[in-house]
Amino acid sequence: MGLSYQENYIIPFELSDIKHDVNLPQLISYCISISGKHSTMLGRSDQYLFDHYHLVWIVTDYEIEINRLPKFKEEVTIKTEAMTYNRFFCYRQFEIRDLDSELLISILSYFALLNPESRKLAQIPDDLVAPYQSEFVKKIKRAPKLHALNGDIMTKDYHVRYYDIDHNGHVNNSKYLDWMFDVLNFDFLCHHIPKSITLKYVKEVAPGGDVTSRCVFEDNVSHHDIISNGQVNAQALIKWQEIEKSEE
Amino acid sequence: MGLSYQENYIIPFELSDIKHDVNLPQLISYCISISGKHSTMLGRSDQYLFDHYHLVWIVTDYEIEINRLPKFKEEVTIKTEAMTYNRFFCYRQFEIRDLDSELLISILSYFALLNPESRKLAQIPDDLVAPYQSEFVKKIKRAPKLHALNGDIMTKDYHVRYYDIDHNGHVNNSKYLDWMFDVLNFDFLCHHIPKSITLKYVKEVAPGGDVTSRCVFEDNVSHHDIISNGQVNAQALIKWQEIEKSEE
Repeated sequence: MGLSYQENYIIPFELSDIKHDVNLPQLISYCISISGKHSTMLGRSDQYLFDHYHLVWIVTDYEIEINRLPKFKEEVTIKTEAMTYNRFFCYRQFEIRDLDSELLISILSYFALLNPESRKLAQIPDDLVAPYQSEFVKKIKRAPKLHALNGDIMTKDYHVRYYDIDHNGHVNNSKYLDWMFDVLNFDFLCHHIPKSITLKYVKEVAPGGDVTSRCVFEDNVSHHDIISNGQVNAQALIKWQEIEKSEE
Repeated sequence: MGLSYQENYIIPFELSDIKHDVNLPQLISYCISISGKHSTMLGRSDQYLFDHYHLVWIVTDYEIEINRLPKFKEEVTIKTEAMTYNRFFCYRQFEIRDLDSELLISILSYFALLNPESRKLAQIPDDLVAPYQSEFVKKIKRAPKLHALNGDIMTKDYHVRYYDIDHNGHVNNSKYLDWMFDVLNFDFLCHHIPKSITLKYVKEVAPGGDVTSRCVFEDNVSHHDIISNGQVNAQALIKWQEIEKSEE
């Protein structure tokens, strides 16, 4: 286990949806910015990483468990911890709890280093991650494998909007999940929340293009991918819970 | 002049675009949430308004002047003031300044009261707005009139996404401007920022539908509307400045 960092956060209007639940894709994005703050406090900001190693962090996978989504105006604690690392991945955990310390959401994220010119993954230098005090573990823990879609496929096309691009010049991670949710119908989303999400990033989406969000839905489980130019950009498996049932 | 309220704000990653400038539609949304905080502090929260008058606030118009957009990580002050009101509108000003007190952005917003069932505007009760100490002015100041589009029209269609809907059940105000910007091409948006924006909301967009964003561009001025089901939902006039030129 490595060092951890914690902040309190009150869910603002901009981060809440029609159900008054937090907007989960944006909350994940916010968690990533908190891990950036943690790194900066340890002298390992993105700028330091780029200046000293000419590399950038990317997140390749998420494993998310949701007991309950925090509500608009609710105060939560967000704790992040650099868990372990190996030659290719740093494993970072986020825990979002209510003020009674009940665990609402846990997020395991897989961070890797990318050379922004060659677009190739780089090995993780020990001296870069030393300040996090996380344990080096030789065995490479892989994210669960997601299979190609199979069955009755629903699709929706999306134009990549100007503001979908973040300041790294790529589609922001949170948008993929946004497109995946949105392919499900409005009424379904008004009455269900995710119970667990496995999300895998395969290939970046370029600015200005179009993507197709595809989904196969069966027994309250949805299988997703995002494709553009015939290539898979991201995949996900989402298990859903009905709101009324979960609150009984 | 009425009471004012001020907060400092550091532009976060989630609110910055590919140019490292603030995402203006989201910043406006954030300003509105600050005015909500001001109202709550004065005992006039949205909940109070709904419980005591069965009404909700809507913003019908914005007049925005931009000298410079704040950058990612920049600290700014956001000051809001309830200026004056008449029977139908409350005029609220926002000023965003850098830490040298230079005015970066000013926003004049027109607030009106809506009966959420009849969808009709309601008169503004004196006792509702008394705590703001803003002056009653009999003359109704109208927002600048915007004309129907005329000329060579560019169009782009947008599906209303699940997360475009805010927790009032309508498309969030910031999305209209998002659609308006996005119809302009990516390269143009990478090299220009707005100098002034006049934005008018005409009719709400329903969840689940599609909209068309239309634009006529001439001499660094863009004329916009958003239409759905043959009706105009919003209009805007935006004057643009080229980044390099303005920074010379």
